[in-house]
Formats: sequence, structure tokens, C-alpha cells
Amino acid sequence: MDGLSIEVAYALDTFYFLMCAALVMWMAAGFAMLEAGLVRAKNTVEILNKNALLYGIACTVYLLVGYNVMYPDSPISSVIPNLGFLLGEDNSAEAVLAGGDDAPYYSNMADFIFQAVFAAATMSIVSGAVAERMRLWPFLVFAVFMVGFIYPVEGYWKWGGGFLDQLGFQDFAGSVVVHMAGAAAALAAVILVGPRKGRYGKNGEVFAIPGANLPLATLGMFILWMGWFGFNGGSELKIANVEEANAVAKIFVNTNAAAAAGMVVAALFSRALFGKTDLTMTINGALAGLVSITAEPLAPSAGLAVMIGAVGGIVVVLSVLALDKCKLDDPVGAISVHGTAGIWGIFAVLLSNEDATFFGQLIGTVVTFAWMFGMSFIVLLAIKAVMGLRVSEEEELVGMDLEECGMSAYPEFAPASQPMVTPPKAPGAHSEEPLASDNPLTAK
Amino acid sequence: MDGLSIEVAYALDTFYFLMCAALVMWMAAGFAMLEAGLVRAKNTVEILNKNALLYGIACTVYLLVGYNVMYPDSPISSVIPNLGFLLGEDNSAEAVLAGGDDAPYYSNMADFIFQAVFAAATMSIVSGAVAERMRLWPFLVFAVFMVGFIYPVEGYWKWGGGFLDQLGFQDFAGSVVVHMAGAAAALAAVILVGPRKGRYGKNGEVFAIPGANLPLATLGMFILWMGWFGFNGGSELKIANVEEANAVAKIFVNTNAAAAAGMVVAALFSRALFGKTDLTMTINGALAGLVSITAEPLAPSAGLAVMIGAVGGIVVVLSVLALDKCKLDDPVGAISVHGTAGIWGIFAVLLSNEDATFFGQLIGTVVTFAWMFGMSFIVLLAIKAVMGLRVSEEEELVGMDLEECGMSAYPEFAPASQPMVTPPKAPGAHSEEPLASDNPLTAK
Amino acid sequence: MDGLSIEVAYALDTFYFLMCAALVMWMAAGFAMLEAGLVRAKNTVEILNKNALLYGIACTVYLLVGYNVMYPDSPISSVIPNLGFLLGEDNSAEAVLAGGDDAPYYSNMADFIFQAVFAAATMSIVSGAVAERMRLWPFLVFAVFMVGFIYPVEGYWKWGGGFLDQLGFQDFAGSVVVHMAGAAAALAAVILVGPRKGRYGKNGEVFAIPGANLPLATLGMFILWMGWFGFNGGSELKIANVEEANAVAKIFVNTNAAAAAGMVVAALFSRALFGKTDLTMTINGALAGLVSITAEPLAPSAGLAVMIGAVGGIVVVLSVLALDKCKLDDPVGAISVHGTAGIWGIFAVLLSNEDATFFGQLIGTVVTFAWMFGMSFIVLLAIKAVMGLRVSEEEELVGMDLEECGMSAYPEFAPASQPMVTPPKAPGAHSEEPLASDNPLTAK
Repeated sequence: MDGLSIEVAYALDTFYFLMCAALVMWMAAGFAMLEAGLVRAKNTVEILNKNALLYGIACTVYLLVGYNVMYPDSPISSVIPNLGFLLGEDNSAEAVLAGGDDAPYYSNMADFIFQAVFAAATMSIVSGAVAERMRLWPFLVFAVFMVGFIYPVEGYWKWGGGFLDQLGFQDFAGSVVVHMAGAAAALAAVILVGPRKGRYGKNGEVFAIPGANLPLATLGMFILWMGWFGFNGGSELKIANVEEANAVAKIFVNTNAAAAAGMVVAALFSRALFGKTDLTMTINGALAGLVSITAEPLAPSAGLAVMIGAVGGIVVVLSVLALDKCKLDDPVGAISVHGTAGIWGIFAVLLSNEDATFFGQLIGTVVTFAWMFGMSFIVLLAIKAVMGLRVSEEEELVGMDLEECGMSAYPEFAPASQPMVTPPKAPGAHSEEPLASDNPLTAK
Repeated sequence: MDGLSIEVAYALDTFYFLMCAALVMWMAAGFAMLEAGLVRAKNTVEILNKNALLYGIACTVYLLVGYNVMYPDSPISSVIPNLGFLLGEDNSAEAVLAGGDDAPYYSNMADFIFQAVFAAATMSIVSGAVAERMRLWPFLVFAVFMVGFIYPVEGYWKWGGGFLDQLGFQDFAGSVVVHMAGAAAALAAVILVGPRKGRYGKNGEVFAIPGANLPLATLGMFILWMGWFGFNGGSELKIANVEEANAVAKIFVNTNAAAAAGMVVAALFSRALFGKTDLTMTINGALAGLVSITAEPLAPSAGLAVMIGAVGGIVVVLSVLALDKCKLDDPVGAISVHGTAGIWGIFAVLLSNEDATFFGQLIGTVVTFAWMFGMSFIVLLAIKAVMGLRVSEEEELVGMDLEECGMSAYPEFAPASQPMVTPPKAPGAHSEEPLASDNPLTAK
Repeated sequence: MDGLSIEVAYALDTFYFLMCAALVMWMAAGFAMLEAGLVRAKNTVEILNKNALLYGIACTVYLLVGYNVMYPDSPISSVIPNLGFLLGEDNSAEAVLAGGDDAPYYSNMADFIFQAVFAAATMSIVSGAVAERMRLWPFLVFAVFMVGFIYPVEGYWKWGGGFLDQLGFQDFAGSVVVHMAGAAAALAAVILVGPRKGRYGKNGEVFAIPGANLPLATLGMFILWMGWFGFNGGSELKIANVEEANAVAKIFVNTNAAAAAGMVVAALFSRALFGKTDLTMTINGALAGLVSITAEPLAPSAGLAVMIGAVGGIVVVLSVLALDKCKLDDPVGAISVHGTAGIWGIFAVLLSNEDATFFGQLIGTVVTFAWMFGMSFIVLLAIKAVMGLRVSEEEELVGMDLEECGMSAYPEFAPASQPMVTPPKAPGAHSEEPLASDNPLTAK
């Protein structure tokens, strides 16, 4: 029963892929909860709408065109992919049973959905960085271009077999191809929309703007962590033999180890820096650990994975502080988590993967950053001209939820005239000055 | 090693089924969060208790008797199933290894739990529609009859091989058998318990009663979406060969595509109708897309799945508005999402499944509706006579949590005397008049 | 193709193990949400930090040393395991294909991560019991000792093949080895840190201290329930043949049945005792049902599983009341859920598992309790001497979040001067006196 075994192997690889896709889809909920927890109550419905709708748009646009751009049947060159629409046929049993190295070993449809949820994750990174001031529909229009064109072209260059892949750029599950790519687009958007009102003082002060619901943000972190088993584990693409099964298991171990270490180290580091164990740093440390190991979750030993994650935990704290120095306002730390830690991750590949070269990693990072940042900047500039990007000052003061969505996230809870607990010294870990009681953000 | 392959295939089919069952079980949490987010704070503990306990009761009653009614060993006729209790033996290795078309290919126990969580999902639909005024234990008593008898008889008619199945009624994963069935029971309950106080004005006004916690509701949507991969994907019943693996993968793709399209279209439609992007419509659009594709998630192309979901997104918005015109108060939109979109879904089968006939779909829908609505009405009427269905006016004003459960969901948050943000024009997308400041619902 | 079948079976067993590990990892989120929902708002950030960081520390410490202590390559004796660090090589394809009873059938890495998340779960039990008054970093230092040494030694005695295993102690998935073990450590900590201020009156009153966010707590229950499919289902260790697949399916059915019964019975019992359906009893009933069946989820019929869970639901309610009589303050009921129900579960093994003896179960329980309680007590005493365990009175009054973490979980919601709903008679199911309006806990 040769054939039965081959069919069962195909089914197992397909099922593994589908379960991983479901886990990555689940990350959309993780981003939504993380961001809803870290924004103010008055902007919560809007960020929920953004996260839900960007996922819907991403899946639809990637189905219509993005998937074919990223994985073209007949690419025009190693730089220019090709156009294509919707999905083709799935594999025939005959092709599978033919065996050999070229025989398909999992469903094309499973491949599509796994790739689609990656595209959505890339876009999810952007929403957090521009939270609380970028308007809903301009953001969603950007999502169409991002998932239909900008990201797939860049994805083609590496995972579609384009020139970055040919140059030896190594990025297993997307520290750069997904995470830094999303962060580069986010950076372009952050520069174009500017910081939130009241975030930066005239004398260089950084005023903390605390998130409204930290249990939600913590839930988001756990969801993302769980989903990352699918994100990295599924990127092995195959499980149905001893070697591949061992590989997927090792990826699970390393992914978990790096996240754990990133979290603990970021918490210790923030405790040492600020005297408090800042929960947002705990959260972002875990996510930074995850991003850091994503470029190479297979080759390192578990001990090395701990170190890679730990460094990611340091990197993200420093990056959050540095971005605020530059007045780049990123309410959830998305650029630091996905961008800075992503760059660390891509070079950490050199520690364990002998096929990686410094030049290959550098060129991949630079080209990806330049493309994602530049194209995002251009597209956002065009959207700005046509629709505008940022809410009015009045709307920002009142909150986006009312104007954009006509409702409030927590309509029954009385707003605190002051934050529930008024800290005697510092209102949050990364503010340098006390939150003045006449701060317009908390005044009614 | 012929036998080994067959055993591994059996194990893979069983494991796939169990994972899908876990995902559908997870939908119970989705319903709980969705409903807890869409009711007022004062009724939140009660709706949480309802959702948790209905799941517990459904699983227990379905184990004791419902499963055997739905899948009787020796049915009395194609209309009348039979009684039976608890579970029999699982398959022997010998029977599996015997091979042939009749050989079992997955564990009976896995089948049971997959079916049990479906029964619970059917009941979950009801809780949202009667939220904020139907008493806890009468609702739970109804759950016993629903899951032990009403739903299994109807399920027998289609999935147990009864007369609806014989008439050619096509319903892959339950747009009608589960979703519209639950909505029909919900409609009976809504008619019997009546609308919430203050919901409808004397002159035909519909006053919005905003939900207390929209991040929870959004989380509920994501949970349900994730769970639906198990709901539809598991309904293929088998994965362990090339054809079946491709089928499950296609179901994942179509399920996701319909949900994405339903969500985006409902958001656009509500934006066009109301001028605001109503998050509850975003949420219900996604769920309507999911319900719409549930009757046939396999046959359509992905492009057609997008269209089916998109129409579902329109249908649900119109249905929500129409039900309010009829003064049928459904706090979470359950009847629209599961009933109206379910009916759309069952006829959408005709677009891709050649075995389906208009007559077959019609008769299945009408019979299912008549049975579920009629029997639910009778049982609820009896419960009303014995226990009463609705809380007292005073209890409704104070909130159900205190009287029924002796506790408050958010005891430390001060209630807003007005909703946190008082909209200048409309308090919510589907209210036609401003929420009067002397509305008894918001007055203290 | 003998070899292909063996490899696919190995891959399936590994994949099943990894999915179960992901589900158990997800339980960390469940504990976090459960505990964050059941503490007061002012201590929420701290408990979130505890839950997140304990998971990170547990995974790291178990990787570095705990796993090797629990499963030593060359144990010193059946009582004393051995030291060892990090992870070895995974199985070679040759060893797998060699076949025979000794051939490995799943990845060592998958085994590690499954065991690691169990260790984290054990530690998660402790955090809830000492919530709202044990300081963050002393707790986390204790986690290092717990996961690196105390738990692994005890785990070795049973699952590592040590003397308790040799004495015939039967504990399938850890009613005692994990759950009562965690509860014993929690009990030691509860005794050492003492009750929360205002919890017990001078005349034996028990004042209810309601949790701030019951939807979160309910979500936590559902997450734990879902994760338990992995916890118990994965403990079968193998799925890739007919017998094992049937076993895993039966474990799913029984786990779900016991949870459902425990939940419903606890709700009915609390309704009968207090006149209200206490949601925290609903939640703890479900968890008690899960703990009760964990010692033997395979041998019982589904009907017996219902009974075992139902008794668990009674036991947990009585235990919660009894602990308060003893002034053992356990804010989330962790000792009752995991300890008392765990003991019930371990003796319920005698109802269905013929290999179990009363003596074996007794000795396993007593030894495990003595070791976990005693060692935890000693280590905590040492930590107390060096770092202190409990926050200052002032910090307890203000809340731990500000002092420990420098932030508030819900900074924008105004605190209620009184609980949102002031009950006329009793503020919660297990308080014996009304919450005095001059109670320092609610006074501003």
C-alpha cells in the first residue's frame, strides 16, 4: 500500500499547514487585543475596526491578486514578478502519487491560506504604530495597496525566489520579510501622520499616554505567542517524516525559548532602568523575542535561542526609548518590536546558519527596508492628497470612536478625571516628567 | 505494512476531528465574549453564566440522550428517530483493518464530541437573542429540551439520514440545521419574552442600547471565526487522503474568504447607510459571512465564496434593521446573523452544488424552521407557565446580575451617568432618534 | 514502503504532541485572565506581570535544568534523580525506522516542550492563591526554585519512573503530580504571606472582595478548558494507531464531560446554598471537574466521567467555604480547585483503573503533598528572610500596580466609591456579612 502512505503523508502535511494557518489567523485577534489594550478608551472602537477590517481586506486582496504577485507562475524577472488573479486548481492525486522530488506534498489551498494570513500579519503591524490619529478608511485603502502590491513584490524577492533569495538572503519565517517590512511601512506612516497631540513637550519631554486596558494587551501577547507556533512552525512547510517532524518540534522549542527569554530580560531591564516592572515592556519583550528568532528558529540550539531572545528583549527596550527621543510616536511599540528586533533577528542568523552571509543579510534588510518604506511613503502621500490621513484636532481630542464609528467602546464606565492612580513621581516607565494635571489628555 | 498505513490514516482522521472539535468548543467562549460585550454592564454576569452553563448542560444532555436521538441505531421511521442513552463501544482495530467502504475511519468518540459541540453552538445562538431580560434557570431548562430533543430530532432528519436528507436537502455544515435552527428557537423566545424596556418608543423609535465592552465583542468575533475552521473544516469528516485533504483545505479558504468579504461589505454598507463605520456591523458582517458559506463551503470557487459572504454582509445589516421595525428585540443580532444569513446560505448552495434543488433547499428550510420555532414556542410556553420567563421590571432596571447572580461584572468601575461619549446626533448606527437624556436606561 | 508509514506515524505523533503543547501553553493565558478578572483593579497589572513572567521563567529554567532533573539520563536512585542541563539530540531516522518496542515514536523536542508547559502550569496555580499581597520578584524567585528543583524532583518520583511510580501510584495527567502539587506550594505561600487586609473580620466574618472583571475570569475558564484537551489528551503520549487514537478521543470526551458536569453541579449547588448563581462557583466548578478527571481521563466511561466531575463541583464549593473558615485567603480559589479537587481526582482513579490501589494513591498524595508543601515552605522562608514576601500595608491599600509596576490596569475608568451595584443583603456568595460601607477596601 505504497499509495496509501503517500496519501496519508500528503494529508498530514496539509493538515499541519491548515492548523498553522489557523494559529496565524488567530494572531489577528492578538494584534487587535494588544492594540485595543494599549490605546486610550476613546480610540478603542476605531482600532478594533481597523484590526478586524484590515484582516478582511488583506485576505480578500491577497486572494484576488497579492498571492499571484508574490508567487507568480511566470515571473518577468527576478525583480519584477507578474500579475495573476485568484487561485488555480489543487494537486491531483496522480501528481502526488507520482512521487519524486517534484511531487506536491501538500494542498495548494493550504499554502494559499497560510500565505494569506502572513500578509494580514504584515499589515497588522502598521495599525498599532499609527493608532489614535490615523483615520480609518485611509488606513484601509493603504491596506489594499500594501497587501495587493507592496508586500507581495518584496515577498517575491525572497520567498517567491526573486533576487534577494538568489543573493543568499536567509529569512526563515520573516523577521525581515514580514516583521521589519511591516515596521518599515509603519515608520513611513508614523512620519507622515506625526505624533499624537500631547505626546511630546516643548522641552523634549515625553509624556506617557497609558493604555486603557492592560489585561487586553496581555491577552494579545499570549495570543500572538500561541499564534507564533503556527507562524514559525508552519514555515518549515513539511512535517511528514522524521527529519521534518524533528525540525518542527525544534522550531516550537526555540520559538518558545526566545519569547520566554525576551520577556524576562525586558522585564528585568525595565526594572533596572525605571525601578518598576513595566508590563508593557514585559509584553514587548516577549514579542521582540519572538521576532528575533523568526529569521532562524531551526538552526540554533535551545540555549542559543534563549540568548537571541534575551538580546531581543534588551533591544526592544532601548529602541522604544530611542524612538521617543526622535519624536517618532508609536503607541504600541510596533516599530521597535517588529523593526528593530527584526533587524537583530536577521543578523542573529549568522550565529547558527552557515548558509547565511553578512552581505546577504545586509542586502536583504536594506533592500526590503528601502522598498517597504519608500513605496509606503509614496502611496500614503497619494492617499493623504486625496483623502487625508489624520483626524482633525478636535476629533483627536474627543476621540476617534465617536466621529469614525459613532459609538464608544466602554459607554457605561465613567471616565476618570485623573488616571485612577496618580503616581507620585512618574506616571509610566518611559515618561521623563510627571503627567501634569493640566495635561489636555486627561483634562475633561 | 499495509496495516500500519491504515491505522495511521485512522489516527490522522481521528486527530483532525478532535482538533476541529476543540475549535468548535472554543466557539462557546466566542459566543460568551460576543454577548458579554454587547449587553449592558448590569446584565453581564448573567449572560456569562448563561453561556457557560448552557455549554455544560448541552454537553451533558447530548451525551445522555441527544446524540442517540440524532444518530439512532435503529430509527423508527425517517421522521421519528428513537431513544438511546450514553455512548457505545469504539471501533476495534480489526474492524478498521478489514478495510472496504464500510470500515470505520475515525473514532466514534471523536464523532461524539464533534457532534456535541455543534449542539452546544445551536443553543448558544439563543442566549444572545434573549439577553438582558430572560431569566437564567428557565433558559437553562429550555436548553435541556433543546439539546436533548428539539435539535436532535431536526438534526436526525438531515444528518441522521432522515426524510430531509432523503428529499435531497443539502446543508454541508449547518447554515440551516444549526444556525437557522438556533435562530428559529431564538425567535420564538424573543416573541415570548418581548423586547427590553426602553428599546422601542411609542412612535416607532428604536433607541440604541449600546453594549458595555466592545473589545470583548470583537474578541468574540475572532474566536468564532477561528472556531469556524473547525466547524466547517471538520464537517468534511475525513482528511486522510489527497482528495479529502484538498477538500478540507478548500473549506478553510472559502470559510475565511466569505467571512472576510462579509465583514468588509457590512462595514462599507453601514458606513454608507449611517455615515459611521459601526463596529457591531463589522462584527456581525463577519459572522454572517461565516454562516452564509456554512451550507456549502466546499463546492464554490474562492471567488464565489467571496460573493456569497459579501451578500451575507448586506443581508445581515438589512435584517437587523428589519427586525427592529418589527419590534423584535435581539440585543446581539443573533437572529439576523444565524437566521437570515443562514437562509441566504442555504439557497446559495444552488450556485455551486449541482445536487441541490430549489425544492430541496426550500423544504429543508421550511420544515426546519417550523419544527424549531413551533417546538421551542411550545416548550417555552410551558416553562413560562411553570417558572416564568422574564425578570421583573424592577430587576430589569437594576440589572439581572444582582438578583440572579448576587454580583456585578465590573464592581469597581463607576457607572457613567451618561454614556461616556454623548454623540451629538445619533448614539448608534441603528437608532433613529437621539438617546434622550431622560431615557430610563441611562438615568441613574 | 514500510519506512514511509513508520515515518508518517512518527510525524503524526510528534505533531499531535506539539498541538497539545500549544494548547497547554495557551493555559498560561487562561490562568492570567482568570486571575486578572478575580483580583481588584488596583492589583491587576501586577498579577498580569506575575502570570506572564512566571511562564517565561518556568520555560527557561525548565529548559536549563528542570527537565533533566525530572527525566534524568542516569538517576542516582529512585528518590534522588540527577543534575543535567539543556537538551540533547533528537532521534535519528535510523533509530525510528529500526522499529521494535524501544524505537522512539515522537520527537524528543516535542516531549520537552510538552513537559515544559506542564511545569509552567504547576507554577501558575500558585500565583492566584497569593494574589493581591505577595510581591512580584520574590514570587518570581520562588518560581525559579519551584520549576528548577521542587517540582521536577516530585515529577521524577512519578513520571520520571521514581519510587512513587514503582509503588503503583496512578496519576495519568497530574491531578496530584501537577495540580495538587501546585496547590500544596500555594498553601505554603498563603500561610506565609497571610490573608489580605480586610478579608476576615474580628468576629469570624468573611468579607467578600469581588473581582474587578468577571468577563475576563470567564474567558480564563474557557481558555483553561480548551487547553485541557491538550493537557489530558497529550498525556496519552501517542495517537498513531487505532487503539491510541481511540484512547485520545475518549480522553477528550471524558475531560469535556467532567468539566461540564462539575460546572453545572457547582452552579446548582451554589444556587441552593446561597440563593444566587455565583459565577465564580460556575467557573471553579468547571475547573474542579477538569482537575478531578485529570488523574484518570481514559478508563472511566463517559457516564462515570460525568459523576467524577459532578462530585468535583461539590467538593470545590465546600472547600472554598472551608478554607475561609480556616482564614486561608485564596483570592481565586486555586487551592480548592487544584488541591482539594485534585485529591478527589486521585482517589476517583480507584473507580475505574484496576491497577490503582488505595495505598498507592494515598502514598502518592501524602508524599507529594509533604514534599511540595515542605520544600516550598522552606524556600519561601528563605526568600522572606532575604527579600520579604509581602507588600507594605500602605502599598496593599493603594494597590500593588503603582508601586511594583508603575502603572494602572484601567487608568481611565473612574473608581466606584461603592461597588457598582450595592446588594441589599449580601455582596457575594461566600460572605457572611454585608460589605460595610466603611470597609477600607472600598473607601476612597
